Amino acid sequence: MTKSSSEPPRRLGEFAMIAKFFAPLSADAEGAFGLADDVATLQVPDGQELVAKVDAIIEGVHFLRTDPAGLIAKKALRVNLSDLAAKGAVPVGYLLSLSIAPWCDDAWLASFAAGLGEDQARFRLSLLGGDTTATPGPLTLSVTALGSIPKGRTVRRAGAVPGDCVFVTGTIGDAGAGLAVLKGEGALLTAYERDDLIGRYRLPEPRLSLGQLLPALASASLDVSDGLVADLGHIAEVSHVRVVIEAARVPLSRPCAKLWGGDAILRAITAGDDYEVAFTAPASARARIAEAAEKSGVPVHEIGRVEEGEGIVLLDVKGQPISVARPGYTHF
Amino acid sequence: MTKSSSEPPRRLGEFAMIAKFFAPLSADAEGAFGLADDVATLQVPDGQELVAKVDAIIEGVHFLRTDPAGLIAKKALRVNLSDLAAKGAVPVGYLLSLSIAPWCDDAWLASFAAGLGEDQARFRLSLLGGDTTATPGPLTLSVTALGSIPKGRTVRRAGAVPGDCVFVTGTIGDAGAGLAVLKGEGALLTAYERDDLIGRYRLPEPRLSLGQLLPALASASLDVSDGLVADLGHIAEVSHVRVVIEAARVPLSRPCAKLWGGDAILRAITAGDDYEVAFTAPASARARIAEAAEKSGVPVHEIGRVEEGEGIVLLDVKGQPISVARPGYTHF
Repeated sequence: MTKSSSEPPRRLGEFAMIAKFFAPLSADAEGAFGLADDVATLQVPDGQELVAKVDAIIEGVHFLRTDPAGLIAKKALRVNLSDLAAKGAVPVGYLLSLSIAPWCDDAWLASFAAGLGEDQARFRLSLLGGDTTATPGPLTLSVTALGSIPKGRTVRRAGAVPGDCVFVTGTIGDAGAGLAVLKGEGALLTAYERDDLIGRYRLPEPRLSLGQLLPALASASLDVSDGLVADLGHIAEVSHVRVVIEAARVPLSRPCAKLWGGDAILRAITAGDDYEVAFTAPASARARIAEAAEKSGVPVHEIGRVEEGEGIVLLDVKGQPISVARPGYTHF
Repeated sequence: MTKSSSEPPRRLGEFAMIAKFFAPLSADAEGAFGLADDVATLQVPDGQELVAKVDAIIEGVHFLRTDPAGLIAKKALRVNLSDLAAKGAVPVGYLLSLSIAPWCDDAWLASFAAGLGEDQARFRLSLLGGDTTATPGPLTLSVTALGSIPKGRTVRRAGAVPGDCVFVTGTIGDAGAGLAVLKGEGALLTAYERDDLIGRYRLPEPRLSLGQLLPALASASLDVSDGLVADLGHIAEVSHVRVVIEAARVPLSRPCAKLWGGDAILRAITAGDDYEVAFTAPASARARIAEAAEKSGVPVHEIGRVEEGEGIVLLDVKGQPISVARPGYTHF
C-alpha cells in the first residue's frame, strides 16, 4: 500500500513514542525512573546547589521545519547548556516539554531523539523527564536544564566592579553571519567559509570546560545570546557600572570579517546567537584566565574594561565613542 | 486616538514585561535573582532530594483563548503541583516557559500574572525563572515545578503489591462532567450544579496536604489526569500487578451522578483531568489513612484491591467484570 500525501504523518501513540524514542535517553539517570513515573528526582550533592534554566525554541522563530531534526534537538539543548556554562555550573540532566506539530512524523522524532542522544553523550547529562503534547500550531520545544554548583558560587550578572577587565570567549558574530548567509549574503565567500558560518548559527558550542573555571575567576558572567552589546548592557545595568568595549579588540573570525568588511565589528556585536561567554574579572586574574583558556582549550580575549557610570560605550581605535543604533535582538 | 481592531495588541517590550509582570512573582526567592540573571539557583536541604515535573498546556487543546487568564495560569501551575502532591513532595518553586500568541496583550498578561501570584501565595512557592518568546501559533505554557522530598521517599507508580488496597481522594469524574456541561450537556442541572462541575474542570485542587503524608503510607501513587482506569492501569503495568476496582465504591459527586445517571460510573472513571490522587497501600495502613484524611481535610475512599496478574478489572455490585471500551485520554 502506498501513502497518499493527504494522509496524516505516521506516528506512534503517546506511550509507545515515549518508550521508543525518549525512555532510552533516560537510561543512565536513576531518578528518571525510565520515564515511567510522574516526576523525576535528582540528588544534589551536599555542599552543592541546583542551577536551573528553561528556554523554548519555536518553529518559524528559532528554526525552520526543514532544518535537520537532530540539529534542532542539539540547539534546544545547547542554548540552555550555554547558560549553565556561563554561570560556572555543571549540567546534570534536563526535562523536555515537546509540543508536537501535525507535520512531525516518527522519522522526524527518531532523528530528533538521535540528536539528543549524541549531545547527551558529549555533554554527559541525561533526560530526566518530560511532557509530549500534540499542538495544532508550530513545533515548540522547551528544555529545562538542571545543573549543580558549589553553594553560592554561581557567577551572576551583578558583580562587575570598576577596574575590572572585560573578556569574551571564541569569536563574536559568526552565528549572525551564518544567518545572513542563509538569507542570501556571502556571494564572495567560499563554500567552506559559508558552511563554517552556517554551522556556527545552527550548532552553538556551550563553553562548559572554561565555564567550570569561572567561579574562581570572574566577577560577572553571561552567555552572549542577544548580541554582545545588549548582553554586556545587562551586566552594566545590574552591576550598576559602565562597560567600555574597544571595538578593535573584539575577536572576529576570518569568514565573518570577510563577509561584512568594514561593517563587520558593528554587525558582529549586535548580532545574536553567539553563545560565547562574556565575563568581567579583576586585572589581577589575567594570568590565571590565560591559563584557564589554555587548560580548557577555549580561546579568551580581553576586549574592554569596567568603569564607574552606566551603560555601554564602544570605542574606535582612536578611543572615540561609536554610536550603536540597535544593540541586539528582542522578541517584542 | 482610538485603536482600530487591526492594530496589534498593546504589549510592553520583553524586558519591561518581565520586570512588570513576572519579576514581582520571584521576590520571595533569593535564587531567582529578581529574574535579572540567566539561571535560577535552588538549595535542596541536606537529606532531601529534588523532585521535578514539566507539563505544557496549549490554547485550543487544554484551554480556550476566551478562558479567564488567571484561571489558565492557575491550571498550568496546579496540574504540576498535583503530580508533586501524588508523589509526596513539597513544592518549592517553578520555572515558566511562556510562548506568547499574537492576540495576547498586556491586560491578558496582567491577569495571568495575578492568577499566578494568588496561587503562589496559596501553595507557598515562587517563580524561580523563565523564558518569554513570541510565537506565531497558539499560546503555549510550559511549567517546570520543583519540589523537595526526603531522599528516596518519592512514592512511585511501581510499588503496588498483591494484597494492597486501592484508594482515591475526593470525587472522580467532576472535571469530565464540567467539560461535558461546557459542551452543552446538563440541561437538568441547576445553575449552581453546573458551575460546581465547571469549576472542577477549570481549577483542579492539588492534594498537597494529604500528599505529604503519603510517603509513610502508600506503596504506589499517582495523580488522576488521564482517567481513573487509565491511570490505575499505569500502576498495574509498572508494578506488575492487577488492579481490581469495585465500580460501586468509586466516589461520585451528586451533580456528576445527576448529570450522567446510569452511565455516571463508566463515564467518570474514563474522564480525565480529575487531579485527584489514586494510591495503593497495605490493608494494615487503613486506620492511619483515615487519620491522614481527617488531618489533611482531604476525603479518601477505598475503591478496590491489588491482586496478582495484570491490567485493570472493573467489577459491578455482583462482582462481575464490566468491560471498559476506552480507558482514558491520550494525545495521539
